[in-house]
Amino acid sequence: MIPGLGGRLAFGGDYNPEQWPEETWDEDVALMREAGVTMVTLGVFSWGLLEPSEGVYEFGWLDRIVEKLAAAGIAIDMATATASPPAWFTHAYPHTRLVDDHGVVRSFGARQNYCPSSPEYRRAAAALALQLAQRYADHPAVVLWHVNNEYGCHNWHCFCDVSAAAFRQWLEVRYGTLDALNESWGTAFWSQHYTDWQQIDPPRAVAYNTFANPGHQLDWWRFSSDELLDCYRAEVEAIRPIVTQPITTNFMNFFKPLDYWQWAREVDVVANDHYLRGEDPANLQDLAMSADLMRSLGGGRPWLIMEHSTSAVNWQPRNLAKTPGQMRRNSFQHVARGSDGAMFFQWRASRAGAEKFHSALVPHAGRDSKVWREVVELGSDLARVAEVAGTVVEPASVAIMFGWPSWWAATLDSHPSVDADPLRETRAWHQALWERNVAIDFVEPGTDLTGRKLAVVPMQYLLDDAALASLHAYVEGGGSVVVTYFSGIVDERDHIRLGGYPAGISDLLGARVEEFFPLPEGEAVALSTLGSGRVWSEWISADGSEVVASFSAGPLAGRPAVTCKPTAGGAAWYVGTELSDAGRAALLDRVLAGAGVEPVVGGLPSGVEVVRRRGDGVGFLFVMNHGDEAVDVPYEGTDLLTGTAGPVTKVPAGGVAVIRGTA
Amino acid sequence: MIPGLGGRLAFGGDYNPEQWPEETWDEDVALMREAGVTMVTLGVFSWGLLEPSEGVYEFGWLDRIVEKLAAAGIAIDMATATASPPAWFTHAYPHTRLVDDHGVVRSFGARQNYCPSSPEYRRAAAALALQLAQRYADHPAVVLWHVNNEYGCHNWHCFCDVSAAAFRQWLEVRYGTLDALNESWGTAFWSQHYTDWQQIDPPRAVAYNTFANPGHQLDWWRFSSDELLDCYRAEVEAIRPIVTQPITTNFMNFFKPLDYWQWAREVDVVANDHYLRGEDPANLQDLAMSADLMRSLGGGRPWLIMEHSTSAVNWQPRNLAKTPGQMRRNSFQHVARGSDGAMFFQWRASRAGAEKFHSALVPHAGRDSKVWREVVELGSDLARVAEVAGTVVEPASVAIMFGWPSWWAATLDSHPSVDADPLRETRAWHQALWERNVAIDFVEPGTDLTGRKLAVVPMQYLLDDAALASLHAYVEGGGSVVVTYFSGIVDERDHIRLGGYPAGISDLLGARVEEFFPLPEGEAVALSTLGSGRVWSEWISADGSEVVASFSAGPLAGRPAVTCKPTAGGAAWYVGTELSDAGRAALLDRVLAGAGVEPVVGGLPSGVEVVRRRGDGVGFLFVMNHGDEAVDVPYEGTDLLTGTAGPVTKVPAGGVAVIRGTA
Amino acid sequence: MIPGLGGRLAFGGDYNPEQWPEETWDEDVALMREAGVTMVTLGVFSWGLLEPSEGVYEFGWLDRIVEKLAAAGIAIDMATATASPPAWFTHAYPHTRLVDDHGVVRSFGARQNYCPSSPEYRRAAAALALQLAQRYADHPAVVLWHVNNEYGCHNWHCFCDVSAAAFRQWLEVRYGTLDALNESWGTAFWSQHYTDWQQIDPPRAVAYNTFANPGHQLDWWRFSSDELLDCYRAEVEAIRPIVTQPITTNFMNFFKPLDYWQWAREVDVVANDHYLRGEDPANLQDLAMSADLMRSLGGGRPWLIMEHSTSAVNWQPRNLAKTPGQMRRNSFQHVARGSDGAMFFQWRASRAGAEKFHSALVPHAGRDSKVWREVVELGSDLARVAEVAGTVVEPASVAIMFGWPSWWAATLDSHPSVDADPLRETRAWHQALWERNVAIDFVEPGTDLTGRKLAVVPMQYLLDDAALASLHAYVEGGGSVVVTYFSGIVDERDHIRLGGYPAGISDLLGARVEEFFPLPEGEAVALSTLGSGRVWSEWISADGSEVVASFSAGPLAGRPAVTCKPTAGGAAWYVGTELSDAGRAALLDRVLAGAGVEPVVGGLPSGVEVVRRRGDGVGFLFVMNHGDEAVDVPYEGTDLLTGTAGPVTKVPAGGVAVIRGTA
Repeated sequence: MIPGLGGRLAFGGDYNPEQWPEETWDEDVALMREAGVTMVTLGVFSWGLLEPSEGVYEFGWLDRIVEKLAAAGIAIDMATATASPPAWFTHAYPHTRLVDDHGVVRSFGARQNYCPSSPEYRRAAAALALQLAQRYADHPAVVLWHVNNEYGCHNWHCFCDVSAAAFRQWLEVRYGTLDALNESWGTAFWSQHYTDWQQIDPPRAVAYNTFANPGHQLDWWRFSSDELLDCYRAEVEAIRPIVTQPITTNFMNFFKPLDYWQWAREVDVVANDHYLRGEDPANLQDLAMSADLMRSLGGGRPWLIMEHSTSAVNWQPRNLAKTPGQMRRNSFQHVARGSDGAMFFQWRASRAGAEKFHSALVPHAGRDSKVWREVVELGSDLARVAEVAGTVVEPASVAIMFGWPSWWAATLDSHPSVDADPLRETRAWHQALWERNVAIDFVEPGTDLTGRKLAVVPMQYLLDDAALASLHAYVEGGGSVVVTYFSGIVDERDHIRLGGYPAGISDLLGARVEEFFPLPEGEAVALSTLGSGRVWSEWISADGSEVVASFSAGPLAGRPAVTCKPTAGGAAWYVGTELSDAGRAALLDRVLAGAGVEPVVGGLPSGVEVVRRRGDGVGFLFVMNHGDEAVDVPYEGTDLLTGTAGPVTKVPAGGVAVIRGTA
Repeated sequence: MIPGLGGRLAFGGDYNPEQWPEETWDEDVALMREAGVTMVTLGVFSWGLLEPSEGVYEFGWLDRIVEKLAAAGIAIDMATATASPPAWFTHAYPHTRLVDDHGVVRSFGARQNYCPSSPEYRRAAAALALQLAQRYADHPAVVLWHVNNEYGCHNWHCFCDVSAAAFRQWLEVRYGTLDALNESWGTAFWSQHYTDWQQIDPPRAVAYNTFANPGHQLDWWRFSSDELLDCYRAEVEAIRPIVTQPITTNFMNFFKPLDYWQWAREVDVVANDHYLRGEDPANLQDLAMSADLMRSLGGGRPWLIMEHSTSAVNWQPRNLAKTPGQMRRNSFQHVARGSDGAMFFQWRASRAGAEKFHSALVPHAGRDSKVWREVVELGSDLARVAEVAGTVVEPASVAIMFGWPSWWAATLDSHPSVDADPLRETRAWHQALWERNVAIDFVEPGTDLTGRKLAVVPMQYLLDDAALASLHAYVEGGGSVVVTYFSGIVDERDHIRLGGYPAGISDLLGARVEEFFPLPEGEAVALSTLGSGRVWSEWISADGSEVVASFSAGPLAGRPAVTCKPTAGGAAWYVGTELSDAGRAALLDRVLAGAGVEPVVGGLPSGVEVVRRRGDGVGFLFVMNHGDEAVDVPYEGTDLLTGTAGPVTKVPAGGVAVIRGTA
Repeated sequence: MIPGLGGRLAFGGDYNPEQWPEETWDEDVALMREAGVTMVTLGVFSWGLLEPSEGVYEFGWLDRIVEKLAAAGIAIDMATATASPPAWFTHAYPHTRLVDDHGVVRSFGARQNYCPSSPEYRRAAAALALQLAQRYADHPAVVLWHVNNEYGCHNWHCFCDVSAAAFRQWLEVRYGTLDALNESWGTAFWSQHYTDWQQIDPPRAVAYNTFANPGHQLDWWRFSSDELLDCYRAEVEAIRPIVTQPITTNFMNFFKPLDYWQWAREVDVVANDHYLRGEDPANLQDLAMSADLMRSLGGGRPWLIMEHSTSAVNWQPRNLAKTPGQMRRNSFQHVARGSDGAMFFQWRASRAGAEKFHSALVPHAGRDSKVWREVVELGSDLARVAEVAGTVVEPASVAIMFGWPSWWAATLDSHPSVDADPLRETRAWHQALWERNVAIDFVEPGTDLTGRKLAVVPMQYLLDDAALASLHAYVEGGGSVVVTYFSGIVDERDHIRLGGYPAGISDLLGARVEEFFPLPEGEAVALSTLGSGRVWSEWISADGSEVVASFSAGPLAGRPAVTCKPTAGGAAWYVGTELSDAGRAALLDRVLAGAGVEPVVGGLPSGVEVVRRRGDGVGFLFVMNHGDEAVDVPYEGTDLLTGTAGPVTKVPAGGVAVIRGTA
């Protein structure tokens, strides 16, 4: 994945030597060697020091640390340093500042304050990237280029006049004519007809207690993702002619503002930043789901966890520390699901600034600490399993459909229920599969589903014609599918498909919904089987399908809640409510059995996570035992971490194993 | 009420043909005939298409649909189309945009974004109204003029500089001199003395954690209601010389920003938009209360429910569908309480735009749906009872006093308790009466109460001298009254009436309050009888009154909570806390018995609502059975819906009857 | 303390005669005499009437009321009337208006709307103060000068461009060079390096979901406190050459924006405004803590409660009335803790304006009221105990360390837990001591602690080198100390002290923290003894200290939670969690016993508060019995309120005694 690493897994983190006196740097390098660090990311926030005034560059300090690292055999992921323009830039170009939807100009003093559509910003960022590329493209220690950082994290939408002009241009390209735009946005409604492109603004704050046009809003999300992608492209175009190393930027998990399916096509290596939410009881599933997405974005290729944390972060309300052993299991979860390494933010915990309470490889307490001891252990473990680098997690038989435009559209205002949340619904189905150790891929709507055994469509509100066609082809080809409520409601313009929901696939499912019956806050509705439903119910007619469960109370008592229509070689399931975890589990067991889906390893107790990577004729079974008891895992092979071999591997409570066996 | 309907009840809804291709229009008209639609409201949001650029009008499409409707015998409520100025207008006149109290200019893209004080807006709206009047005044299908739409729904207060100038002018008219204004606002307090009219601004956001002058705020509410009324007047003045049909605009229930007592004097027909709050367990009472208000605003004359919904709306957090039969009962609740018809928003559910999930007469699912079948049934039912058109609900023996300036003043900041809410208190008393099927009117404070048996004054904080005088005259003339806490505290300037609350009527009640003792959040105080009190308690001295209940715990233990003073021919009750529903019911039984108030029909089980309209020598008893069991209603006559006659009518669970009997 | 009072205690309140017609004034003075009022504060909000246009002064009305008061023997606390600039001023100088962190210009119409850095405001305020001083400096009734009012209450931070320029100037003075500023703020982080002073703005709203630089924020709090103090200084400089009376301004309890340790050095008399939070169950402790702070700010000298309330206020969500007797006990709590009187806001309850529902000495109900009867009683009581004037509460053996910069820094964003609150932790320890009737002083970090027996350091996050040195000297000198979690983490720049927390005093405590383990919301962790901990846990190593309690569940099970290291003549305790009230009480009993700390009077039941003031050879034991039963207090002497003498004084339920005995 990263040729310059020479077969090693990436291990290290963001390194910000400029925050420390140079006398610390030698200690840094010595500690990196002690921990087995193989790569660091350099210069992410160094613009201010690398270009202290416009066009004046100072690379001396960076040269010095690059040489120290190179001498120690530590590879470098070189940042283009453009994530946060410095004070002189913002002061010289005040119109590059972010403006929010209430017209407030956001101020310098944190990070990433720039308008994504600003030509001044794009020009200045590309210029700095070019300088760095020219200076370090040929340096043997540099193995990867890290463009910018966490695009959109704090500037996902800018409502300034520059953005407004860019938006109009983007719309002209998309629609060609105002007639097409008016038709798409349905501007006959509420007298919103546009007669001149200049009349169109970003969806800034509208009159009190009302709703901006949803077509307008949806295109704004599309535009904003595209504008940031253009920022990325501008830097890549500047350096691509010069550098030979792969180029990446770091994604941020299920980050709503950016359509990562589009972004993933433009990076050489998919990289991800993932942080556990300490107070989320299912945060291990969240990690696994994030990793499954990243692998899927890259089409199954190895990817890289570019940032995670050794322990607590600083930006949550309550930043919970990791328990002993947890960092190791988390790192191996990522590697198991396809990451060729485990990188962290950051190398040394800051003593000042907004992130000083973010954990690091070297904590404030220094070497005499739980964190440092675990870091050294992890470095050693990763070296032991280096042979997994470049191997892959094979395509899964289960695919979960997840699209960004659908997410955006489904969560606009003035909808049937604020409780209908596609990400929660997606997590619920992923979790049920994850708990069974069933391998899962994500797929973009419209993707060819051939070869999958089961497709899950969890509240995919917007399905364009291509997505409908691929579902039809797949089911007619023998695939099984589970579609859950509020899916397939609109086309790509957010126009309702008329005639009974979900009009485009109602026939496929043998289920026709004529009216939504959202539930009051916190209320559940009993089902004839599968427990109860929350959030949603709806008036369903079953036509050619079996009624698996029906509502057993309320205005829909006796009407279908869950249906199943036998198809060519499988079955098409429809779920008209949010099932309880137990109900979903019971249903899923039937679905998986019918579709012939098997777990990676069956029969394991709860809390034992297993994933398999495969290389040439060899398989690597990763076991992360999150439970409180040791477990015997039946998989013939050798645990690379302990060197023990056998038909069964005992993995201690809280422990990890990586068993090399047959593929 | 609407002569052009020729004795039919209005049945139909907002019709927005411009949202659909013309080929749909013939189907629309055919479906309207199938459903028995008698009237549609046309053109509410058509400004953008009727006047695509300034002074250029395009009526062709409107002419075509008007002719189709006329040919089918469907009457038209013709809108002046001015509710939402189009994009070209806002772009040409950017200063017409709404500005909020933080100075944020609100953006085009939803609806109703205009400054109510804008002369450009008023001029442009009147010009369009004039064009429509000139073109359609003589069309026989047009039976009603619908000026603008839901005034103030999204632009109730505008804080721009144009509004500021208009506010100053309004204040000059009100006060004449700055001395009078300074005295009225009490500007000696906090050094707020004004020495020039130009120093006065709208009550925009003030310094942190403090409170704008309450006199300033109260006048701002008055001004804002007046400015929107002036918008209405400007359109009426433009069309009145030309049109012969009645003119109306649609109110919005208990809408705080507009003093509908003032507005009602200027409409030919009172029209109302009412939507159930799905999650409000008492929403049927809310409907009844809204209808009682509308009838009262019109002085008892028939009015019209201009918008309600066939099922769910789209703007609540969770938009609950109506259960089978509910739309029919809701419609008859309105008709029972004086509406000469049942109109809906909207005819055909939109496929795009912010209201696409709002239910309609024709749902997304089409004719094969619960909603459509119920619509057809309702059209047929309304035709069966057409003879009620023009009959009236007679003046009720119980009047609830409710004033807008009092509402505004009572809910300003820096008050004894944020939990003291005049609308909740009003609802509570209305609900207790409604549950007993006692007929209720609302009256404006200061109205002559002669002929009433009972007046309820629920937290009417502001009572001007006229209101006090009318209460005195009424009680001295033998009427009974119930006054609840935090009533009569201030005069029309929001100045305290000194000497013990409520100083102006303390003698009448035989109760003097010297200090308020609001209760902590969520806490109740036990009473000696009538259960417990919430929200409020107070230090009351009974003087010439009987102590009906006293506080039995806390710092006021043993002191009066509810008192009753016998008067000329009745009794004056005072309630110094928010009673529980059971306590209020128990008290009300005593009050009603003492005042000689009878229900419309007594002895009915809970959930059976009865109301009587009366015509020439004939009475119509409307029965809405909201319960789960059939009920026998003893009222001699013929049920117009089923044709069955007798001394008793059986009304099925969830059913409706309209029994024609003697008056 | 106030020589002009001639040995009387101050009793009275803010008097705003300009809100009432002059015919009321004679009644006011007569009522003041009836109540025994000794002093009123005059003119606090009179700017608008005293200077109706720029440079034009009208003192006639003020002269008249001053003479009336003087004739009645009522002393005057003369305000400089500058707290709220009038309308003409704001209109003439619109740039003096407050601007918030989102750029919203705050509007005239409430109070205190001015930019603290405005030169126009400072000039105008000083000019008015000078006029008043010139006119009334020699008036014998004037005994105190009241500069401005409640500085910062509504304008604690102004983000306008004038403030920005002032901030830059303040930073230049503080740092001298940009290099020093960059180092202090850690601007190498996130590319925040400044290369020109002009690049620095106030910490206005930054990009979405991110954090302004904490050094920047901390200095902004320092700057804002300093700017308001400069406003105070400007007025004092104007009047000091002229007036001979003491000068003060009124503080507001633990008011976060102002570092009262700095402010207290510049007032002749410490004055305080304190209002009970009706819904705070521990509001009596809050009162006592506020009073202890005020006395400590003045170095133990008598101070003055300048504003409290006779009953409810108007600005809380629910404004609870005081129960009978409560005002009297509250007033004596203040006097007991060193206040030479009891002043109130305000004399006569307003009939208009934002504070009309704020209680007063003369309520809306007039003389026939609980409030007025209690006011008269209090006036009489205070006259009976006048001899306590000038006596002192002696230095306490227990000192609680509390610093404003630490408070500011500890509550910045991006910290380990939003639940870690230094003020709550401080209150908890104060409350435990208060419940034991142990006398308590507050001390500024860095103060010499010699002579104390116990120092409590409750979550003092920021301890500069001087504070560390004073703790070392104190403990090495035999003092005992209790340090609680998240103390001593950073230096005055908000830079972490590296090597294990709290690095500067870890050795003193024998406890080293290597990692914070904040608890999830609402969760507790069991301890081996002392109950359970909330909010926080941490990885502690005990080194030379006894483990008093350890965590007994969760990831830290078995590790120390509370430690104690014996020292020279005492002990150093460390508490690594927020103890429950019961756990803290149990620990405190051990700590107090070890340190030899005794209560003022021991063995009293809960709810009986005792404090001792001391004069020349005489002691005054104040007893406030907040309980429901009478209590016998063993303190030989004479109760000044009843005249009864003996070895034991019986204090009735809800009552007060002031027992003169030996010192």
